[in-house]
Amino acid sequence: MHDIEIDEKILSRNEALARENREALKGRGIFSINVVSSPGSGKTTIIEKTVELLRDRVGMAVIEGDMQTDLDAQRIARYNIPVRQITTGKACHLDAHMVHHTLPWVFGQGKVQLLIFENVGNMVCPAEYDLGEDMKVAVMSVPEGDDKPLKYPTLFHAAKVLIINKTDLVRFTNFDLQRAEENALKINPRLTVFKMSCADGTGLREWADFLAAHSMK
Amino acid sequence: MHDIEIDEKILSRNEALARENREALKGRGIFSINVVSSPGSGKTTIIEKTVELLRDRVGMAVIEGDMQTDLDAQRIARYNIPVRQITTGKACHLDAHMVHHTLPWVFGQGKVQLLIFENVGNMVCPAEYDLGEDMKVAVMSVPEGDDKPLKYPTLFHAAKVLIINKTDLVRFTNFDLQRAEENALKINPRLTVFKMSCADGTGLREWADFLAAHSMK
Repeated sequence: MHDIEIDEKILSRNEALARENREALKGRGIFSINVVSSPGSGKTTIIEKTVELLRDRVGMAVIEGDMQTDLDAQRIARYNIPVRQITTGKACHLDAHMVHHTLPWVFGQGKVQLLIFENVGNMVCPAEYDLGEDMKVAVMSVPEGDDKPLKYPTLFHAAKVLIINKTDLVRFTNFDLQRAEENALKINPRLTVFKMSCADGTGLREWADFLAAHSMK
Repeated sequence: MHDIEIDEKILSRNEALARENREALKGRGIFSINVVSSPGSGKTTIIEKTVELLRDRVGMAVIEGDMQTDLDAQRIARYNIPVRQITTGKACHLDAHMVHHTLPWVFGQGKVQLLIFENVGNMVCPAEYDLGEDMKVAVMSVPEGDDKPLKYPTLFHAAKVLIINKTDLVRFTNFDLQRAEENALKINPRLTVFKMSCADGTGLREWADFLAAHSMK
Protein backbone atom coordinates (compact mmCIF):
# COMPACT_ATOMS: atom_id res chain seq x y z
CA MET A 1 0.00 0.00 0.00
CA HIS A 2 1.44 3.37 -0.91
CA ASP A 3 2.05 5.76 1.93
CA ILE A 4 -0.88 8.19 1.93
CA GLU A 5 1.13 11.30 2.75
CA ILE A 6 3.55 10.65 -0.10
CA ASP A 7 0.70 9.90 -2.47
CA GLU A 8 -0.93 13.22 -1.64
CA LYS A 9 2.25 15.10 -2.47
CA ILE A 10 2.60 13.25 -5.77
CA LEU A 11 -1.06 13.84 -6.57
CA SER A 12 -0.93 17.57 -5.83
CA ARG A 13 2.16 17.95 -8.05
CA ASN A 14 0.24 16.04 -10.70
CA GLU A 15 -2.79 18.34 -10.33
CA ALA A 16 -0.66 21.43 -10.92
CA LEU A 17 0.83 20.02 -14.11
CA ALA A 18 -2.56 18.79 -15.27
CA ARG A 19 -3.90 22.34 -14.95
CA GLU A 20 -1.05 23.60 -17.15
CA ASN A 21 -1.75 20.89 -19.73
CA ARG A 22 -5.45 21.73 -19.71
CA GLU A 23 -4.81 25.42 -20.31
CA ALA A 24 -2.32 24.72 -23.09
CA LEU A 25 -4.79 22.39 -24.84
CA LYS A 26 -7.71 24.80 -24.40
CA GLY A 27 -5.56 27.64 -25.73
CA ARG A 28 -5.13 25.72 -28.99
CA GLY A 29 -8.77 24.65 -29.20
CA ILE A 30 -8.01 20.98 -28.68
CA PHE A 31 -10.66 18.78 -27.06
CA SER A 32 -9.14 15.79 -25.27
CA ILE A 33 -10.34 12.53 -23.78
CA ASN A 34 -8.56 10.06 -21.50
CA VAL A 35 -9.74 6.50 -22.13
CA VAL A 36 -9.44 4.25 -19.07
CA SER A 37 -10.34 0.59 -18.53
CA SER A 38 -9.06 -2.83 -17.53
CA PRO A 39 -6.72 -4.61 -19.92
CA GLY A 40 -8.67 -6.08 -22.79
CA SER A 41 -11.90 -4.07 -22.51
CA GLY A 42 -11.44 -2.93 -26.09
CA LYS A 43 -9.92 0.57 -25.77
CA THR A 44 -7.65 0.28 -28.81
CA THR A 45 -10.39 -1.14 -31.02
CA ILE A 46 -12.77 1.65 -29.96
CA ILE A 47 -10.10 4.21 -30.89
CA GLU A 48 -9.51 2.52 -34.25
CA LYS A 49 -13.24 2.66 -35.04
CA THR A 50 -13.43 6.27 -33.83
CA VAL A 51 -10.55 7.27 -36.10
CA GLU A 52 -12.16 5.51 -39.07
CA LEU A 53 -15.46 7.33 -38.52
CA LEU A 54 -14.05 10.78 -37.71
CA ARG A 55 -10.78 11.38 -39.49
CA ASP A 56 -12.42 13.05 -42.50
CA ARG A 57 -14.36 15.43 -40.27
CA VAL A 58 -12.07 16.11 -37.32
CA GLY A 59 -8.31 16.66 -37.00
CA MET A 60 -7.07 13.97 -34.61
CA ALA A 61 -4.00 12.75 -32.73
CA VAL A 62 -3.57 9.79 -30.37
CA ILE A 63 -1.20 9.28 -27.44
CA GLU A 64 -0.78 5.62 -26.47
CA GLY A 65 0.24 4.74 -22.92
CA ASP A 66 1.68 1.27 -22.52
CA MET A 67 3.96 -0.31 -19.92
CA GLN A 68 5.79 -2.32 -22.58
CA THR A 69 5.47 -2.83 -26.34
CA ASP A 70 4.15 -0.45 -28.97
CA LEU A 71 1.59 -2.94 -30.29
CA ASP A 72 -1.30 -0.50 -29.77
CA ALA A 73 0.55 2.47 -31.31
CA GLN A 74 1.33 0.32 -34.34
CA ARG A 75 -2.36 -0.50 -34.70
CA ILE A 76 -3.34 3.19 -34.65
CA ALA A 77 -0.47 4.23 -36.96
CA ARG A 78 -2.05 2.17 -39.75
CA TYR A 79 -4.81 4.81 -39.98
CA ASN A 80 -2.37 7.54 -41.01
CA ILE A 81 -3.07 9.90 -38.16
CA PRO A 82 -0.42 11.22 -35.77
CA VAL A 83 0.23 8.75 -32.95
CA ARG A 84 2.82 8.93 -30.21
CA GLN A 85 3.77 6.23 -27.72
CA ILE A 86 4.51 6.85 -24.04
CA THR A 87 6.18 3.78 -22.54
CA THR A 88 5.46 3.92 -18.82
CA GLY A 89 7.80 1.08 -17.77
CA LYS A 90 6.86 0.15 -14.19
CA ALA A 91 4.25 2.90 -13.86
CA CYS A 92 0.73 1.59 -14.01
CA HIS A 93 -0.86 4.74 -15.46
CA LEU A 94 -0.13 7.88 -17.48
CA ASP A 95 0.44 11.07 -15.49
CA ALA A 96 0.36 14.79 -16.22
CA HIS A 97 4.16 14.99 -16.31
CA MET A 98 4.49 12.42 -19.11
CA VAL A 99 1.75 14.20 -21.05
CA HIS A 100 3.40 17.58 -20.46
CA HIS A 101 6.48 16.38 -22.31
CA THR A 102 4.39 15.12 -25.20
CA LEU A 103 2.36 18.28 -25.83
CA PRO A 104 5.01 20.03 -27.98
CA TRP A 105 4.78 17.04 -30.32
CA VAL A 106 0.96 17.39 -30.41
CA PHE A 107 1.24 21.10 -31.18
CA GLY A 108 3.55 20.31 -34.10
CA GLN A 109 1.00 18.04 -35.83
CA GLY A 110 -0.99 20.64 -37.77
CA LYS A 111 -4.72 20.90 -37.11
CA VAL A 112 -5.61 18.76 -34.11
CA GLN A 113 -9.15 19.22 -32.77
CA LEU A 114 -9.47 15.95 -30.88
CA LEU A 115 -6.66 14.41 -28.83
CA ILE A 116 -7.18 10.88 -27.49
CA PHE A 117 -5.13 9.46 -24.63
CA GLU A 118 -5.27 5.70 -24.33
CA ASN A 119 -4.22 4.97 -20.77
CA VAL A 120 -2.48 1.83 -19.46
CA GLY A 121 -4.96 -1.02 -18.96
CA ASN A 122 -5.87 -0.61 -15.31
CA MET A 123 -9.20 0.22 -13.74
CA VAL A 124 -7.69 1.54 -10.53
CA CYS A 125 -4.69 3.86 -10.63
CA PRO A 126 -5.39 5.89 -13.81
CA ALA A 127 -8.66 7.04 -12.21
CA GLU A 128 -6.72 9.17 -9.74
CA TYR A 129 -4.42 10.93 -12.19
CA ASP A 130 -5.72 13.96 -14.06
CA LEU A 131 -3.76 14.41 -17.30
CA GLY A 132 -5.40 17.73 -18.18
CA GLU A 133 -8.02 16.06 -20.38
CA ASP A 134 -11.54 17.42 -20.85
CA MET A 135 -13.14 14.14 -19.93
CA LYS A 136 -12.28 10.70 -18.70
CA VAL A 137 -14.01 7.96 -20.67
CA ALA A 138 -14.43 4.75 -18.68
CA VAL A 139 -14.80 1.55 -20.67
CA MET A 140 -16.17 -1.64 -19.16
CA SER A 141 -16.82 -4.68 -21.30
CA VAL A 142 -19.59 -7.22 -20.98
CA PRO A 143 -17.40 -10.23 -20.09
CA GLU A 144 -16.06 -8.33 -17.04
CA GLY A 145 -19.44 -8.54 -15.30
CA ASP A 146 -22.11 -5.98 -14.40
CA ASP A 147 -20.87 -5.52 -10.81
CA LYS A 148 -17.70 -3.61 -11.79
CA PRO A 149 -18.99 -0.07 -11.07
CA LEU A 150 -19.73 -1.07 -7.45
CA LYS A 151 -16.35 -2.72 -7.00
CA TYR A 152 -14.17 -0.03 -8.65
CA PRO A 153 -16.16 3.15 -7.93
CA THR A 154 -13.25 5.63 -8.24
CA LEU A 155 -13.10 5.37 -12.03
CA PHE A 156 -16.87 5.57 -12.50
CA HIS A 157 -16.96 8.54 -10.18
CA ALA A 158 -14.18 10.36 -12.08
CA ALA A 159 -15.54 9.66 -15.59
CA LYS A 160 -17.95 11.80 -17.58
CA VAL A 161 -18.64 9.06 -20.10
CA LEU A 162 -19.09 5.31 -19.71
CA ILE A 163 -18.84 2.97 -22.67
CA ILE A 164 -20.30 -0.48 -22.05
CA ASN A 165 -18.42 -2.40 -24.73
CA LYS A 166 -18.75 -5.83 -26.37
CA THR A 167 -22.55 -5.83 -26.13
CA ASP A 168 -22.52 -8.53 -28.84
CA LEU A 169 -21.36 -10.93 -26.09
CA VAL A 170 -24.34 -10.27 -23.78
CA ARG A 171 -26.23 -13.35 -24.96
CA PHE A 172 -23.30 -15.66 -24.10
CA THR A 173 -22.91 -14.37 -20.52
CA ASN A 174 -25.05 -13.59 -17.46
CA PHE A 175 -24.38 -9.86 -17.92
CA ASP A 176 -27.45 -7.66 -17.36
CA LEU A 177 -27.10 -4.42 -19.38
CA GLN A 178 -29.73 -2.59 -17.38
CA ARG A 179 -28.21 -3.59 -14.05
CA ALA A 180 -24.76 -2.54 -15.26
CA GLU A 181 -26.06 0.89 -16.21
CA GLU A 182 -27.97 1.24 -12.93
CA ASN A 183 -24.88 0.25 -10.95
CA ALA A 184 -22.82 2.87 -12.79
CA LEU A 185 -25.42 5.60 -12.34
CA LYS A 186 -25.65 4.77 -8.62
CA ILE A 187 -21.96 5.74 -8.37
CA ASN A 188 -22.24 8.72 -10.73
CA PRO A 189 -25.68 9.91 -11.87
CA ARG A 190 -24.19 12.36 -14.38
CA LEU A 191 -22.51 9.71 -16.54
CA THR A 192 -23.32 9.72 -20.25
CA VAL A 193 -23.59 6.03 -21.19
CA PHE A 194 -22.92 4.50 -24.61
CA LYS A 195 -23.67 0.83 -25.26
CA MET A 196 -21.25 -0.34 -27.91
CA SER A 197 -20.03 -3.27 -29.94
CA CYS A 198 -17.11 -2.84 -32.30
CA ALA A 199 -17.94 -6.30 -33.68
CA ASP A 200 -21.45 -5.43 -34.90
CA GLY A 201 -21.21 -1.62 -34.93
CA THR A 202 -23.72 -0.90 -32.14
CA GLY A 203 -23.39 2.62 -30.74
CA LEU A 204 -20.37 3.68 -32.80
CA ARG A 205 -22.16 6.33 -34.84
CA GLU A 206 -23.66 7.98 -31.70
CA TRP A 207 -20.27 7.96 -30.01
CA ALA A 208 -18.52 9.50 -33.03
CA ASP A 209 -21.18 12.21 -33.31
CA PHE A 210 -20.85 12.99 -29.61
CA LEU A 211 -17.08 13.42 -29.98
CA ALA A 212 -17.42 15.46 -33.19
CA ALA A 213 -19.86 17.85 -31.49
CA HIS A 214 -17.41 18.39 -28.63
CA SER A 215 -14.35 18.72 -30.89
CA MET A 216 -15.81 21.24 -33.33
CA LYS A 217 -17.21 23.70 -30.81
CA MET B 1 4.19 7.88 -11.51
CA HIS B 2 5.38 6.82 -8.10
CA ASP B 3 8.80 7.98 -7.09
CA ILE B 4 11.14 5.04 -7.62
CA GLU B 5 13.21 5.51 -4.48
CA ILE B 6 10.11 5.59 -2.28
CA ASP B 7 8.69 2.57 -4.04
CA GLU B 8 11.83 0.58 -3.34
CA LYS B 9 11.61 1.38 0.36
CA ILE B 10 7.96 0.31 0.49
CA LEU B 11 8.72 -2.83 -1.46
CA SER B 12 11.65 -3.88 0.75
CA ARG B 13 9.47 -3.40 3.86
CA ASN B 14 6.84 -5.51 2.14
CA GLU B 15 9.39 -8.24 1.33
CA ALA B 16 10.43 -8.52 4.97
CA LEU B 17 6.83 -8.94 6.14
CA ALA B 18 6.09 -11.37 3.31
CA ARG B 19 8.97 -13.56 4.51
CA GLU B 20 7.46 -13.60 8.01
CA ASN B 21 4.05 -14.52 6.60
CA ARG B 22 5.57 -17.30 4.50
CA GLU B 23 7.38 -18.82 7.47
CA ALA B 24 4.27 -18.63 9.65
CA LEU B 25 2.17 -20.34 6.97
CA LYS B 26 4.79 -23.00 6.29
CA GLY B 27 5.14 -23.63 10.02
CA ARG B 28 1.46 -24.58 10.11
CA GLY B 29 1.56 -26.65 6.93
CA ILE B 30 -0.65 -24.25 4.97
CA PHE B 31 -0.21 -24.03 1.20
CA SER B 32 -1.27 -20.64 -0.15
CA ILE B 33 -1.99 -19.12 -3.54
CA ASN B 34 -2.43 -15.47 -4.54
CA VAL B 35 -4.88 -15.13 -7.44
CA VAL B 36 -4.23 -12.05 -9.60
CA SER B 37 -5.97 -10.74 -12.71
CA SER B 38 -7.81 -7.82 -14.28
CA PRO B 39 -11.28 -7.04 -12.99
CA GLY B 40 -13.77 -9.48 -14.43
CA SER B 41 -11.41 -12.26 -15.52
CA GLY B 42 -13.36 -14.69 -13.35
CA LYS B 43 -11.25 -15.00 -10.17
CA THR B 44 -14.22 -15.30 -7.81
CA THR B 45 -16.01 -17.86 -9.97
CA ILE B 46 -12.82 -19.95 -10.22
CA ILE B 47 -12.52 -19.87 -6.43
CA GLU B 48 -16.18 -20.87 -6.04
CA LYS B 49 -15.65 -23.86 -8.36
CA THR B 50 -12.41 -24.76 -6.58
CA VAL B 51 -14.15 -24.73 -3.20
CA GLU B 52 -16.99 -26.90 -4.54
CA LEU B 53 -14.54 -29.47 -5.88
CA LEU B 54 -12.10 -29.52 -2.96
CA ARG B 55 -13.85 -28.74 0.30
CA ASP B 56 -14.49 -32.42 1.12
CA ARG B 57 -10.84 -33.31 0.56
CA VAL B 58 -8.89 -30.25 1.69
CA GLY B 59 -9.31 -27.83 4.60
CA MET B 60 -9.65 -24.38 3.03
CA ALA B 61 -9.92 -20.68 3.86
CA VAL B 62 -10.26 -17.67 1.57
CA ILE B 63 -9.12 -14.06 2.01
CA GLU B 64 -10.92 -11.63 -0.30
CA GLY B 65 -9.20 -8.37 -1.23
CA ASP B 66 -11.55 -5.69 -2.51
CA MET B 67 -11.33 -1.90 -2.69
CA GLN B 68 -15.00 -1.54 -1.83
CA THR B 69 -17.93 -3.89 -1.21
CA ASP B 70 -17.92 -7.42 0.16
CA LEU B 71 -19.80 -8.86 -2.84
CA ASP B 72 -17.08 -11.44 -3.49
CA ALA B 73 -16.76 -12.45 0.17
CA GLN B 74 -20.54 -12.93 0.28
CA ARG B 75 -20.34 -15.22 -2.75
CA ILE B 76 -17.65 -17.39 -1.11
CA ALA B 77 -19.39 -17.41 2.29
CA ARG B 78 -22.31 -19.32 0.74
CA TYR B 79 -20.04 -22.38 0.53
CA ASN B 80 -19.65 -22.59 4.30
CA ILE B 81 -15.91 -22.27 4.41
CA PRO B 82 -14.02 -19.61 6.39
CA VAL B 83 -13.78 -16.36 4.41
CA ARG B 84 -12.39 -13.02 5.51
CA GLN B 85 -12.62 -9.70 3.71
CA ILE B 86 -9.77 -7.17 3.48
CA THR B 87 -11.14 -3.84 2.28
CA THR B 88 -8.20 -2.03 0.69
CA GLY B 89 -9.89 1.36 0.23
CA LYS B 90 -7.71 3.38 -2.12
CA ALA B 91 -4.99 0.73 -2.34
CA CYS B 92 -5.02 -1.11 -5.63
CA HIS B 93 -3.60 -4.40 -4.30
CA LEU B 94 -3.19 -6.52 -1.19
CA ASP B 95 0.14 -6.26 0.61
CA ALA B 96 2.06 -8.35 3.14
CA HIS B 97 1.10 -6.02 6.00
CA MET B 98 -2.64 -6.45 5.47
CA VAL B 99 -2.14 -10.21 5.26
CA HIS B 100 0.04 -10.21 8.38
CA HIS B 101 -2.89 -8.84 10.39
CA THR B 102 -5.23 -11.48 9.00
CA LEU B 103 -3.08 -14.55 9.75
CA PRO B 104 -4.19 -14.91 13.40
CA TRP B 105 -7.75 -15.25 12.08
CA VAL B 106 -6.58 -17.96 9.62
CA PHE B 107 -4.79 -19.84 12.39
CA GLY B 108 -8.01 -19.82 14.44
CA GLN B 109 -10.04 -21.60 11.73
CA GLY B 110 -9.22 -25.21 12.54
CA LYS B 111 -7.58 -27.35 9.87
CA VAL B 112 -6.58 -25.14 6.95
CA GLN B 113 -4.40 -26.82 4.32
CA LEU B 114 -5.08 -24.44 1.44
CA LEU B 115 -5.36 -20.66 1.82
CA ILE B 116 -6.54 -18.68 -1.19
CA PHE B 117 -5.95 -14.93 -1.51
CA GLU B 118 -8.14 -13.24 -4.10
CA ASN B 119 -6.35 -10.01 -4.91
CA VAL B 120 -7.90 -6.72 -6.06
CA GLY B 121 -8.74 -6.83 -9.78
CA ASN B 122 -5.63 -5.29 -11.30
CA MET B 123 -3.09 -6.83 -13.62
CA VAL B 124 -0.32 -4.38 -12.72
CA CYS B 125 0.31 -3.48 -9.07
CA PRO B 126 -0.47 -6.81 -7.31
CA ALA B 127 2.27 -8.43 -9.40
CA GLU B 128 4.92 -6.53 -7.45
CA TYR B 129 3.69 -7.31 -3.94
CA ASP B 130 4.67 -10.61 -2.36
CA LEU B 131 2.13 -11.56 0.32
CA GLY B 132 4.08 -14.59 1.53
CA GLU B 133 2.12 -16.96 -0.70
CA ASP B 134 3.58 -20.15 -2.20
CA MET B 135 2.53 -19.21 -5.70
CA LYS B 136 0.97 -16.42 -7.65
CA VAL B 137 -1.75 -17.61 -9.99
CA ALA B 138 -2.30 -15.27 -12.94
CA VAL B 139 -5.70 -15.39 -14.61
CA MET B 140 -6.33 -13.99 -18.07
CA SER B 141 -9.65 -14.46 -19.79
CA VAL B 142 -10.35 -14.98 -23.46
CA PRO B 143 -12.22 -11.70 -24.06
CA GLU B 144 -9.18 -9.73 -22.88
CA GLY B 145 -7.17 -10.75 -25.94
CA ASP B 146 -4.18 -13.01 -26.51
CA ASP B 147 -1.64 -10.14 -26.45
CA LYS B 148 -1.93 -9.51 -22.70
CA PRO B 149 1.23 -11.40 -21.59
CA LEU B 150 3.34 -9.20 -23.88
CA LYS B 151 1.72 -5.99 -22.64
CA TYR B 152 1.71 -6.75 -18.89
CA PRO B 153 4.80 -8.95 -18.51
CA THR B 154 5.42 -8.31 -14.78
CA LEU B 155 2.51 -10.48 -13.67
CA PHE B 156 3.30 -13.32 -16.07
CA HIS B 157 6.90 -13.19 -14.96
CA ALA B 158 5.98 -13.35 -11.26
CA ALA B 159 3.39 -16.13 -11.58
CA LYS B 160 3.98 -19.88 -11.33
CA VAL B 161 0.58 -20.74 -12.78
CA LEU B 162 -1.44 -19.20 -15.58
CA ILE B 163 -5.14 -19.89 -15.96
CA ILE B 164 -6.54 -18.98 -19.37
CA ASN B 165 -10.20 -18.62 -18.42
CA LYS B 166 -13.51 -18.41 -20.32
CA THR B 167 -12.33 -20.74 -23.09
CA ASP B 168 -16.04 -21.26 -23.94
CA LEU B 169 -15.93 -17.76 -25.49
CA VAL B 170 -13.04 -18.54 -27.91
CA ARG B 171 -15.38 -19.19 -30.83
CA PHE B 172 -17.04 -15.76 -30.46
CA THR B 173 -13.75 -13.82 -30.49
CA ASN B 174 -10.50 -13.62 -32.45
CA PHE B 175 -8.60 -15.07 -29.48
CA ASP B 176 -5.97 -17.66 -30.44
CA LEU B 177 -5.39 -20.07 -27.53
CA GLN B 178 -2.09 -21.32 -28.87
CA ARG B 179 -0.76 -17.80 -29.44
CA ALA B 180 -1.86 -16.75 -25.94
CA GLU B 181 0.03 -19.66 -24.41
CA GLU B 182 3.10 -18.99 -26.57
CA ASN B 183 3.07 -15.30 -25.59
CA ALA B 184 2.90 -16.24 -21.91
CA LEU B 185 5.69 -18.82 -22.17
CA LYS B 186 7.86 -16.29 -24.00
CA ILE B 187 7.69 -14.13 -20.85
CA ASN B 188 8.02 -17.06 -18.44
CA PRO B 189 8.89 -20.52 -19.79
CA ARG B 190 8.27 -22.18 -16.39
CA LEU B 191 4.57 -21.31 -16.21
CA THR B 192 2.14 -24.17 -15.63
CA VAL B 193 -0.83 -23.37 -17.86
CA PHE B 194 -4.45 -24.43 -17.30
CA LYS B 195 -7.10 -23.76 -19.94
CA MET B 196 -10.39 -23.35 -18.15
CA SER B 197 -14.06 -22.57 -18.49
CA CYS B 198 -16.24 -22.32 -15.41
CA ALA B 199 -19.25 -22.25 -17.76
CA ASP B 200 -18.63 -25.69 -19.33
CA GLY B 201 -16.25 -27.15 -16.73
CA THR B 202 -13.14 -27.37 -18.93
CA GLY B 203 -9.94 -27.76 -16.92
CA LEU B 204 -11.52 -27.54 -13.46
CA ARG B 205 -10.77 -31.11 -12.42
CA GLU B 206 -7.07 -30.83 -13.43
CA TRP B 207 -6.77 -27.55 -11.54
CA ALA B 208 -8.41 -28.96 -8.38
CA ASP B 209 -6.14 -32.03 -8.47
CA PHE B 210 -3.07 -29.81 -8.89
CA LEU B 211 -4.06 -27.76 -5.82
CA ALA B 212 -4.94 -30.86 -3.79
CA ALA B 213 -1.54 -32.39 -4.54
CA HIS B 214 0.22 -29.23 -3.34
CA SER B 215 -1.99 -28.79 -0.26
CA MET B 216 -1.71 -32.35 1.04
CA LYS B 217 2.07 -32.75 0.83
